[in-house]
Amino acid sequence: MSDVPAPAAPLGAERRSLEPLGFEIPSTVPTHWYNLNADLPEPVPPHLHPGTREPLGPEDLAPLFPMALIAQEVATERYIEIPQTVREIYSLWRPAPLIRAHRLERVLGTPARIYYKYEGQSPAGSHKPNTAIAQAYYNALEGTTKLTTETGAGQWGASLSLAGALLGLTVEVWQVRSSYDAKPYRRFQMEAYGGVCHSSPSDLTDSGRAILAATPDTTGSLGMAISEAVEAAAKDPQAHYSLGSVLNHVMLHQTVIGQEALVQLAEAGDPVPDIVFGCAGGGSNLAGLTFPFLGRNLREGTTTGLVACEPAACPSLTQGTYRYDHGDVAGLTPLLKMHTLGADFVPPAIHAGGLRYHGMSPMVSHAVNLGLMEAVAVEQDEAFRAGVTFARAEGIIPAPESTHAVSAAIAHARAATTDEVILIGLSGNGVLDLPSYADYV
Amino acid sequence: MSDVPAPAAPLGAERRSLEPLGFEIPSTVPTHWYNLNADLPEPVPPHLHPGTREPLGPEDLAPLFPMALIAQEVATERYIEIPQTVREIYSLWRPAPLIRAHRLERVLGTPARIYYKYEGQSPAGSHKPNTAIAQAYYNALEGTTKLTTETGAGQWGASLSLAGALLGLTVEVWQVRSSYDAKPYRRFQMEAYGGVCHSSPSDLTDSGRAILAATPDTTGSLGMAISEAVEAAAKDPQAHYSLGSVLNHVMLHQTVIGQEALVQLAEAGDPVPDIVFGCAGGGSNLAGLTFPFLGRNLREGTTTGLVACEPAACPSLTQGTYRYDHGDVAGLTPLLKMHTLGADFVPPAIHAGGLRYHGMSPMVSHAVNLGLMEAVAVEQDEAFRAGVTFARAEGIIPAPESTHAVSAAIAHARAATTDEVILIGLSGNGVLDLPSYADYV
Repeated sequence: MSDVPAPAAPLGAERRSLEPLGFEIPSTVPTHWYNLNADLPEPVPPHLHPGTREPLGPEDLAPLFPMALIAQEVATERYIEIPQTVREIYSLWRPAPLIRAHRLERVLGTPARIYYKYEGQSPAGSHKPNTAIAQAYYNALEGTTKLTTETGAGQWGASLSLAGALLGLTVEVWQVRSSYDAKPYRRFQMEAYGGVCHSSPSDLTDSGRAILAATPDTTGSLGMAISEAVEAAAKDPQAHYSLGSVLNHVMLHQTVIGQEALVQLAEAGDPVPDIVFGCAGGGSNLAGLTFPFLGRNLREGTTTGLVACEPAACPSLTQGTYRYDHGDVAGLTPLLKMHTLGADFVPPAIHAGGLRYHGMSPMVSHAVNLGLMEAVAVEQDEAFRAGVTFARAEGIIPAPESTHAVSAAIAHARAATTDEVILIGLSGNGVLDLPSYADYV
Repeated sequence: MSDVPAPAAPLGAERRSLEPLGFEIPSTVPTHWYNLNADLPEPVPPHLHPGTREPLGPEDLAPLFPMALIAQEVATERYIEIPQTVREIYSLWRPAPLIRAHRLERVLGTPARIYYKYEGQSPAGSHKPNTAIAQAYYNALEGTTKLTTETGAGQWGASLSLAGALLGLTVEVWQVRSSYDAKPYRRFQMEAYGGVCHSSPSDLTDSGRAILAATPDTTGSLGMAISEAVEAAAKDPQAHYSLGSVLNHVMLHQTVIGQEALVQLAEAGDPVPDIVFGCAGGGSNLAGLTFPFLGRNLREGTTTGLVACEPAACPSLTQGTYRYDHGDVAGLTPLLKMHTLGADFVPPAIHAGGLRYHGMSPMVSHAVNLGLMEAVAVEQDEAFRAGVTFARAEGIIPAPESTHAVSAAIAHARAATTDEVILIGLSGNGVLDLPSYADYV
């Protein structure tokens, strides 16, 4: 047989066509994102300029984001069409499966019917590519050639690097130092996709150098890494910044999760779940999972309960204050109205790195503040215990983040006395977090 | 909300019911395994007793395997029904997706239509659970309470531990020392499922102690680890031994891969691929992928080409001898007629740990010997280069094993001048092999 060697893959982004390939996409892949703003009884408080404290205009965000995303940040229409090229990439792993947890039900001996919506089959292993692909697409379409971002445990950095590879953008990532040092696999993942990853704080930015001068031994935080990535983008005319959670357009992109779950639950004969559990760090997984259910509650009067499950070690919703605060340590980001523990809060080094954020999505914060969803804090040990129970019943080892939702759902199912319907958001798998399971076991 | 803590998960196997749950399984999950023995022009040479060199009888295998698997080892009927409980577990991740590699085709600029059959969405990340679940089921049904096995990089140990968790068996794994030391994640995965993992050679068995006495600094090999696991099972009346590849019943269980691919390709409008590429170590992925196509070639006269892709560093099919040899170092296993590099061959420490085996499945060896499939050896660097090209086009980072098939397929597609149809067996994802990609990149 022929044995022509392939040319060496370049280390970095290859130019990619943004044109759709034109193949037929299954109708089960959503055609539109759902925008909760269309159904909220009161609008989400606007983001404010960090200097003037006036509501942001598009020109304030233009140095960091493409116009399409700036428009989505304040959009009010209920449905926003997903570009065909994004839908084609989604179709590589979407629709994500909705699975009835038969074996877990038997282990728990519960009369409840438990379903889980599983986002761990994306190439990055979590829900993060749902927005990474969309953000990279709009940036590439408007001529950006490079994206900068921050990452904690690395799910987001890997997801954006994946998106950069597929859509032809260079990706530069600042990763929180404690994760950079302790968990190199996701950095290797970024590099396999052609991304570049720095430990944060780094000496590559003014904000990084300032933090290093003041606290050279810091373990880093998402707030610090955001400062560095934002600064790097602002100083490079070819670059934009990309955020993996918190902002409204990120919540929007993630609604493919809940949109699919609505359809899949109906097909399974349980169209209106009694209660939905999702883990919440910055809020994007939770919003993506629950907003389509919340919208239906608001429009049609269904009463699906929605529960944000956050870590007891970083409890922004259950212990934070609802006020305007910065998204980062250096105060470079806009002021966001959110539940916050304070922009300088450095959470303990829990295993669920994706939940170590001082604030919470303004849209999720607003919904909780209006009483449209509730929040619960889960201890780490209890979360891992639930993760092991889940893994030994259903096979999938949940991401440490996801175990917070699993834990709350299992507690609820154990107490259930009727055949209620429970939906768990399984935001990712824990394959790259196995050392934390080893610590627990 | 209620907050009843879940009880601590026991560390070890929990008893599980073997009864089917009775839910409806999609018709796209195969109901039967396909047995190539029914269609071969000559029978596969029998396994021989290591002492008498006579064909093995069931009683010779009874200390190691349950009767159902012993019967499957010599079965001649074309289709064997999959037990409902096994099918229910398969349905957690099966049917495995068949994906048209549109983006890879565009990157390569090939007129060929490339498909890949992806086994990496199983909870263990590879095709291995297809047989692990079946073997654990039959063992549990016949009263076995413990399974022993060997593992290289750890895919098989993790898969059998998963099966043990789901079906209520204790699992004890001997892992090749070099992998045990260098790649702890899959051991953590085994432990998360309740499995126990030892470094091999160990001082827990006679064969391990003998190897340690002779070569204390050995990096270990699959042949050594098999000796230890077989010995441990033979000495424990409650235990059986489980092999992740090589034997006929393992090939049988893996045919769900090719059975599904036949149906999925027909649905995609390309029912008869021109050529199928699969990686080959012990042979189970290759057999599972290709035997249903080979059976059709033999029955219906289709001419789908079938290519075994093995590592140049451990080239049993392309450089080995076709003769009777032991499956292990200590000579405890039956004599198998196979392409072999010699039972004492210690392959170099290549990254594709799953392909580091001195022999090859007797069924695959027989098919190659009859000229029914061909074999090609791929260099490691070339394989990784193809893996990176694939990851940056399709998103999925292939397992190092799978990159051997990807490499041969890419070379073939680059040389293609017509719109032929290529099928790649993507046996697993490379998420737990990211350090090897980091070495390459």
